[in-house]
Amino acid sequence: MIIVVSPEAAPGDIDHIVARIEESGRQAHLSVGAERTIIGVIGSDSPELLDTFLVLPGVESVHQVTKPYRLVSREFRGDDTVIEVGHGVTVGGGELAVMAGPCSIENEEHIFESAQAVKAAGANILRGGAYKPRSSPYAFRGLGEVGLRYLAAAGRELDMPVITELMSTSEIDVVCEYTDIIQIGARNMQNFMLLDAVGKTRKPVMLKRALSGQIEEWLLAAEYIVAQGNPNVILCERGIRTFETAYRNTFDINAIPLVKELSHLPVIADPSHGTGKFGLVEPVAKGAIAAGADGLMIEVHDRPDHALSDGAQSLTYERFAGLMRSVAQVAAAVGRDISAVGVAAGAR
Amino acid sequence: MIIVVSPEAAPGDIDHIVARIEESGRQAHLSVGAERTIIGVIGSDSPELLDTFLVLPGVESVHQVTKPYRLVSREFRGDDTVIEVGHGVTVGGGELAVMAGPCSIENEEHIFESAQAVKAAGANILRGGAYKPRSSPYAFRGLGEVGLRYLAAAGRELDMPVITELMSTSEIDVVCEYTDIIQIGARNMQNFMLLDAVGKTRKPVMLKRALSGQIEEWLLAAEYIVAQGNPNVILCERGIRTFETAYRNTFDINAIPLVKELSHLPVIADPSHGTGKFGLVEPVAKGAIAAGADGLMIEVHDRPDHALSDGAQSLTYERFAGLMRSVAQVAAAVGRDISAVGVAAGAR
Amino acid sequence: MIIVVSPEAAPGDIDHIVARIEESGRQAHLSVGAERTIIGVIGSDSPELLDTFLVLPGVESVHQVTKPYRLVSREFRGDDTVIEVGHGVTVGGGELAVMAGPCSIENEEHIFESAQAVKAAGANILRGGAYKPRSSPYAFRGLGEVGLRYLAAAGRELDMPVITELMSTSEIDVVCEYTDIIQIGARNMQNFMLLDAVGKTRKPVMLKRALSGQIEEWLLAAEYIVAQGNPNVILCERGIRTFETAYRNTFDINAIPLVKELSHLPVIADPSHGTGKFGLVEPVAKGAIAAGADGLMIEVHDRPDHALSDGAQSLTYERFAGLMRSVAQVAAAVGRDISAVGVAAGAR
Amino acid sequence: MIIVVSPEAAPGDIDHIVARIEESGRQAHLSVGAERTIIGVIGSDSPELLDTFLVLPGVESVHQVTKPYRLVSREFRGDDTVIEVGHGVTVGGGELAVMAGPCSIENEEHIFESAQAVKAAGANILRGGAYKPRSSPYAFRGLGEVGLRYLAAAGRELDMPVITELMSTSEIDVVCEYTDIIQIGARNMQNFMLLDAVGKTRKPVMLKRALSGQIEEWLLAAEYIVAQGNPNVILCERGIRTFETAYRNTFDINAIPLVKELSHLPVIADPSHGTGKFGLVEPVAKGAIAAGADGLMIEVHDRPDHALSDGAQSLTYERFAGLMRSVAQVAAAVGRDISAVGVAAGAR
Repeated sequence: MIIVVSPEAAPGDIDHIVARIEESGRQAHLSVGAERTIIGVIGSDSPELLDTFLVLPGVESVHQVTKPYRLVSREFRGDDTVIEVGHGVTVGGGELAVMAGPCSIENEEHIFESAQAVKAAGANILRGGAYKPRSSPYAFRGLGEVGLRYLAAAGRELDMPVITELMSTSEIDVVCEYTDIIQIGARNMQNFMLLDAVGKTRKPVMLKRALSGQIEEWLLAAEYIVAQGNPNVILCERGIRTFETAYRNTFDINAIPLVKELSHLPVIADPSHGTGKFGLVEPVAKGAIAAGADGLMIEVHDRPDHALSDGAQSLTYERFAGLMRSVAQVAAAVGRDISAVGVAAGAR
Repeated sequence: MIIVVSPEAAPGDIDHIVARIEESGRQAHLSVGAERTIIGVIGSDSPELLDTFLVLPGVESVHQVTKPYRLVSREFRGDDTVIEVGHGVTVGGGELAVMAGPCSIENEEHIFESAQAVKAAGANILRGGAYKPRSSPYAFRGLGEVGLRYLAAAGRELDMPVITELMSTSEIDVVCEYTDIIQIGARNMQNFMLLDAVGKTRKPVMLKRALSGQIEEWLLAAEYIVAQGNPNVILCERGIRTFETAYRNTFDINAIPLVKELSHLPVIADPSHGTGKFGLVEPVAKGAIAAGADGLMIEVHDRPDHALSDGAQSLTYERFAGLMRSVAQVAAAVGRDISAVGVAAGAR
Repeated sequence: MIIVVSPEAAPGDIDHIVARIEESGRQAHLSVGAERTIIGVIGSDSPELLDTFLVLPGVESVHQVTKPYRLVSREFRGDDTVIEVGHGVTVGGGELAVMAGPCSIENEEHIFESAQAVKAAGANILRGGAYKPRSSPYAFRGLGEVGLRYLAAAGRELDMPVITELMSTSEIDVVCEYTDIIQIGARNMQNFMLLDAVGKTRKPVMLKRALSGQIEEWLLAAEYIVAQGNPNVILCERGIRTFETAYRNTFDINAIPLVKELSHLPVIADPSHGTGKFGLVEPVAKGAIAAGADGLMIEVHDRPDHALSDGAQSLTYERFAGLMRSVAQVAAAVGRDISAVGVAAGAR
Repeated sequence: MIIVVSPEAAPGDIDHIVARIEESGRQAHLSVGAERTIIGVIGSDSPELLDTFLVLPGVESVHQVTKPYRLVSREFRGDDTVIEVGHGVTVGGGELAVMAGPCSIENEEHIFESAQAVKAAGANILRGGAYKPRSSPYAFRGLGEVGLRYLAAAGRELDMPVITELMSTSEIDVVCEYTDIIQIGARNMQNFMLLDAVGKTRKPVMLKRALSGQIEEWLLAAEYIVAQGNPNVILCERGIRTFETAYRNTFDINAIPLVKELSHLPVIADPSHGTGKFGLVEPVAKGAIAAGADGLMIEVHDRPDHALSDGAQSLTYERFAGLMRSVAQVAAAVGRDISAVGVAAGAR
């Protein structure tokens, strides 16, 4: 940590700052420049320490020099993490993962039919929501456990791992029973109790970035999970909230290569939420793969105008199959292994 | 709901849209203009319906005409809600409420001493965190139940209601046992399971706005609580996340008068989080009161450079007493009843 | 400037960084810590230098330690700047300045009538636009020079200084001929040629903050003007662009006390643009004054539903007079001198 | 335009709204629903009209149903615009355009050498700045006309069209003399006088999106130019300003397919500014092309740590050549014609 001393600091201020550094069990290293005096704090950084120094008289600014996350960083682990998610499917490490299915599990027949359609088009993981976070208390909020049972059955039948969202620690046991991958939604990225709880399981966890989650906060949220002993974390970029109102969210493509540089964890792109408009899903999916994403999560519905949620961003089976063909071309062009998704790049 | 038909719609598209409206149990009302055909949907709006229409061929845009929240709206209830929070203190309805205390409950002696100091300066509600949401898993996360016990004891001793944050449904019983007001933090504004749970209690709930929470989403989150049967909701503006990096958050003063126009619920301002810098807390507190806030929440610490959390935005006892004197002046100028906070406006 | 060396830096990287520092005419000061090596750069900072070091191999991050603006900073000048704007009116230094009038100058009679109305209510500076920045090329774009003539005549007649917006260097002479204060609009905050041009005059300049202008960029834009020799700069906070769609802009009240801490220049609040909704103008105006603004700019129109621009945020004469009475109360409560605005604080 | 009447409207309000609509020369069409009365306004929309209706008593909200831009819309022109920019190069229409070169023109030799390097790697348009918008008045601001002369000479010598930024109407003649494409920078997207001025030339204009420019505003800015008679407008997405601080700007990939859906104008991606970090330029460039961009603008410098501006986001010649090879692969995968950029897709 580095403390910049204000040019208007009073004579005793520097002594006081040094004393406070030493009180914290660290050492101070002074460097007197022409314009500013700078004090290096030798010893480990901590978030509280930043605040501590900021309020001391004579301090102009405080700069952190180490990153606040460790276990999820590239420094800690140079190789890409590859996660086995069941049924022989892996996420990370070159192979493209494609999670697809309806936003909500609507009924038994529908999730089976959806699973068949997305598998036929090349998806290798089945998604479906049983507990739905909805802005309005009057909207459809999911089938709950019965939905999970349908989802698990469809996954077994089609030999696909399944992913579903966990919204509260109180459902963790039932969700773990039925799912292969636990999804933590954007609105729960900083639900720290939930992060701790999934960290205590060994299930793969897909952690979505919050609507206004900074990269550093997102990686810290992943750190919560890994720090509890669960190394199987998949990140998911799903669009951020900006001033632009032409789409529901703004897909942040910069995040893909940056997160892969900062962390060894795999990163999935969700262009369905990242745009909120079905017409933009395919081009943004291609963009995300070209930029290095390890896979996609796509909402698919046979009749989007009858979907119980997220119809506006859902692709029909036909559009999804088209997306898979064109994504396969792009994936091949950037050197991805697309054997898992079962679509020939030349099949366009 | 209003559907705007695209000028490029195919001949059968309008018939199809009308049929889908009628299938949903509503009626369609066509209006053919020079530039666009518009279809009014007669019957109640719902979030799913918006998506339903957006994906129909020939639809250019869909506009909601009713607000998605009801129980918390001014339309539903014209008079201001006034909430009894215990020890004879009310929030809303003319009287100024001031919640103050340390960010975290640090130990028994400290919370007692803090309570005495903030009460002496004019605060009428005591705050203190026992479960702390922290970006980093390595930061101090609160004393838990033992902290709640200290807080409740300090409130009893000083005859002040107390407020503390609830982070998870699993702590709801213990938090309810010790606190007078439950705080839902910004990061949990859309933790819908938690909203449901506090909606089933009858405790006053203070609901903070999320970092990127739109006014409509915030009121919908309040609607979740009220829809479960708990009408005692207090809103709290605590700053939003913007592009500006000169402060931790940007206090949104516009929200104060707008929320009071749209809703009958009281609104508290939290300039400590709303700025993140102790030097800005007092001017922004005065601004919020001048703009019509029903009260303040302020972080106070005897030695901010030794605070276990949020030191940079905490006021010393002395600064807090100064804030109370100047806020009382402003409150009097805008016609607020400041008898509860026990500071004479002329005492400056 | 401080350079943080990456823990993965190659052996020769530090030598290379030091060499590059010395090549730039500065000195390097190494500090080897347990977790990171830090290199202090001794000598003046510059924006190019930041980029220079960021791209060197082995550099993890670069931190600026001095502020990039000088002449407008509190360090450079401790006392508040007070600007004479004509007709005996000053901006800054304790006295409240109130600029009011229609968005656009519509015709001669209208600007005279508006001037009388706002003066009667207590405004001491007359505003009116002759060159209007409009998002659409099909909107009303102002009367140009003829409008300026009407504005100047109204100001002379009512003994009030006038303010109007300058949009391009090509109108600088004609605008300077007729106006007392030149306004630089939000969309031109970083129109550097325009900043240079007004810096070469000695007219008072009111510089609005850009829609996404950071505080540092805003002060640097002011520095452009002062660096050319014109010290008469007034800052104006007019709301920023955020994710919130309930208002046109989000008035940033934090900016008021922060800018007054960082700079000696006066700061005016524009709650008309800062909210975009007439119903929010008065509460936000009171809030801005309570937080320390040196004055207000308010759009006023006798019949807002017939205004040629900005009707939705314009106050009627009656509402404006009401605003002035309640603002005077707040101003008195925070110790402002309101003699100039001619409204007795007790007149409410 | 559609007016939603408040349920609390007074009896005469609707009559008054209808009268105001008719006064404006339009017709009113009432539709009385269960929850709200809706008034359709028949006749052309205009921005002023929105404000007019918003302030009428009894109005709850006003919705625009037609887009405010016309000439640049897909409705106006279904086919993609293809622009001849000189030396046989076109922008739009299938062929990939790549603009590359240094941020600033530094001296004659440097721009020649840069031109050779970027051409050898496959660029077909040469970029270089002679007038530089800089946040700080103390930064290098470009060589001015002498720089333009070097740039034009390099373009002639290498048989490449050139592009350079115009910052003010006062330089329009000299810039037009030397350049093939005029660039309007992000900070001038709403410098309406400048838009008018370039609209009066027939030179191709590349219009960058503002830091906080909404898609609709960006297209309206293009409309300004086309409305003056110049149809040769190229759009350029260069990243927007968000809450994320890990990069200088957030490249908005959603904008690429959306703008191509709404408008017939070509769209160029600028990942150099869109990320601000050289390490992210290549992945984001590939993503933008995969998502449908018509070309790229890339900053290149032989020694980024000696660049006079934007060093941190500049690619070395070698990195740029690598980018061109990998972009060519992606472009081929999405069916782009890459013959113009002279890089074999198989050359990787």
